Amino acid sequence: MTRPDKKVAVLSPVAWRTPPRQYGAWETVASNLTEGLVARGWDVTLFATRDSVTSAHLHAVVDKGYEEDSTVDSKVAEYLHISGAFEHAAEFDLIHSHYDFMALTYIRLVKTPVLTTIHGFSSPKIMPVYQKYCDGYFVSISDSDRAAGLRYLATVYNGIDLSLYPLQESGGDDLIFLGRIHPDKGVHLAIEVARLSGRRLIIAGIIQDEVYYRKQVKPHIDDQNIRYIGPVGVAGKNELFARGCALLHLNTIPERFGLVLAEANAAGVPVIAMDLGSCREVIKHGQTGFLVNNVIEAVEALERIPEIDRRACRSRVQQHFSIETMVDGYERVYATIFGLEAKRQP
Amino acid sequence: MTRPDKKVAVLSPVAWRTPPRQYGAWETVASNLTEGLVARGWDVTLFATRDSVTSAHLHAVVDKGYEEDSTVDSKVAEYLHISGAFEHAAEFDLIHSHYDFMALTYIRLVKTPVLTTIHGFSSPKIMPVYQKYCDGYFVSISDSDRAAGLRYLATVYNGIDLSLYPLQESGGDDLIFLGRIHPDKGVHLAIEVARLSGRRLIIAGIIQDEVYYRKQVKPHIDDQNIRYIGPVGVAGKNELFARGCALLHLNTIPERFGLVLAEANAAGVPVIAMDLGSCREVIKHGQTGFLVNNVIEAVEALERIPEIDRRACRSRVQQHFSIETMVDGYERVYATIFGLEAKRQP
Repeated sequence: MTRPDKKVAVLSPVAWRTPPRQYGAWETVASNLTEGLVARGWDVTLFATRDSVTSAHLHAVVDKGYEEDSTVDSKVAEYLHISGAFEHAAEFDLIHSHYDFMALTYIRLVKTPVLTTIHGFSSPKIMPVYQKYCDGYFVSISDSDRAAGLRYLATVYNGIDLSLYPLQESGGDDLIFLGRIHPDKGVHLAIEVARLSGRRLIIAGIIQDEVYYRKQVKPHIDDQNIRYIGPVGVAGKNELFARGCALLHLNTIPERFGLVLAEANAAGVPVIAMDLGSCREVIKHGQTGFLVNNVIEAVEALERIPEIDRRACRSRVQQHFSIETMVDGYERVYATIFGLEAKRQP
Repeated sequence: MTRPDKKVAVLSPVAWRTPPRQYGAWETVASNLTEGLVARGWDVTLFATRDSVTSAHLHAVVDKGYEEDSTVDSKVAEYLHISGAFEHAAEFDLIHSHYDFMALTYIRLVKTPVLTTIHGFSSPKIMPVYQKYCDGYFVSISDSDRAAGLRYLATVYNGIDLSLYPLQESGGDDLIFLGRIHPDKGVHLAIEVARLSGRRLIIAGIIQDEVYYRKQVKPHIDDQNIRYIGPVGVAGKNELFARGCALLHLNTIPERFGLVLAEANAAGVPVIAMDLGSCREVIKHGQTGFLVNNVIEAVEALERIPEIDRRACRSRVQQHFSIETMVDGYERVYATIFGLEAKRQP
């Protein structure tokens, strides 16, 4: 069913390097997919920043991620990067875009089929673009994160590199928050759980909402019970996973996928997640963590953490959220597209 | 030499309606050109907001200018609008873009030749796009506003509709400032000239830089000697021209063209302009106004305003900055492009 004789272009965002040094979920997934495809013999060209690291062919017109380079205008970088990929469309059998709505506006100008993985709808204001190109090829990253009327070929869960997150046989006592410091991610709720349960909470992640950080996070930081350690990369995450008894992910809006849930589980860390959006697809209640509806339920769930088998957490990730399962999923989608395109040819 | 058998697409911006109700220089020029071409028998399709007013065919995917509609995301509107035009490229012999650097990123994906009128380089950060597409077809709106290395086919001065600005045989005593309230436009210098000369200054235009307005303009407004009346449309401009003895245009950065200079001159109002950028191309020193280098020279120039013949001001605009001369200029450029394209065909 796989067709490694085909040439595939993977269009990654250019907000960060691919893979990102720290934060950058979309670039992480684009990287994992690219490396997974190359490992299976696909001829892949990765369109990403010039400082990206890949075993695929790299095509770059932007030196660094615009979030890491103040000399670059993000809009200019995006237009140059996306058009740069589409200008090479004829060299590929498929363009697999991870680039949000902007890339869609080029798809009718090329003959090469374009698959778009929708990593999230950032605002209702971008929906007119999806509506216009609703007959394109789409993949959702969870069943819950779908918009009506788009031609979805499948849900393909994000896959993580399990070798990066080795199983921590026994965790410590700390609670962990890992993610953007933003109200959507419920840092304030994690702090509340820590206080109510009398446990220590370690918060890691980039500050995306300064006002929120200043008003609802910073006042609670005491470097004892509530600590903030800034953004962390893979090594930093593993240190946290080694000392964590649970990851708190009390998102306040529907989660689209939740890469960090899979990463924590991979390391054997149970997750207490708000039952909103994709969390119930990533976390198996009572087996790899607990789904809750509020802070009180989260505190109660903490009591039940000893019931969770850390090896079961990892094995579920291996089964559903590994690079291999993701590449399996995309190979099936690619085969579907090649089949549909073959029928369209005269 | 003209080829009215050809079909032309004019791509206007969608920040405002085409033509704009008040402010919107790029949309004004796109409108004037479109109407001028239609008047000469060209088959023109105007790509603009849906509420635009034109005698050409109108193609619209955005209801209103994003500056006039808070429900619209400007980035989404731009991507939909520009791609909407390029998706129809095959229907045209020429796409004439007034849409800044963004539209350039689509030109290599279509066979139709694309002419770009560069209405201004908003930032050095956008230059990489022009460098990439430097072999496109470009027109500058003044000889002074050119970037090195681009294939310019001509300078075509912006043309105004002289019927909108009838000659005011005799002006009043007021000084006029017309333009965006922004440090680039030197509103603070106009205020200084008014104070030093003891004359009344009437300021009209949108506030683009709030801090500048609050700190350097508002404190001087006394509703007597220094008045601010907000943005004005054509009628408001004519009222100002009727009472104006001179327009003060003391720009602090090189002007790209300066539509308002031509409008004032058309109405017979002399212009005192800073000798930066295109001002010396639009204003003939001693004949339609004065070019100055600082506030003192501007005050001195005011003494010499009676030397200026108001009819001579209008007649120079008729000769160089009318819709007719602009359409003449673009017809020559179009002919050049059709000639070059014909040679490229196999």
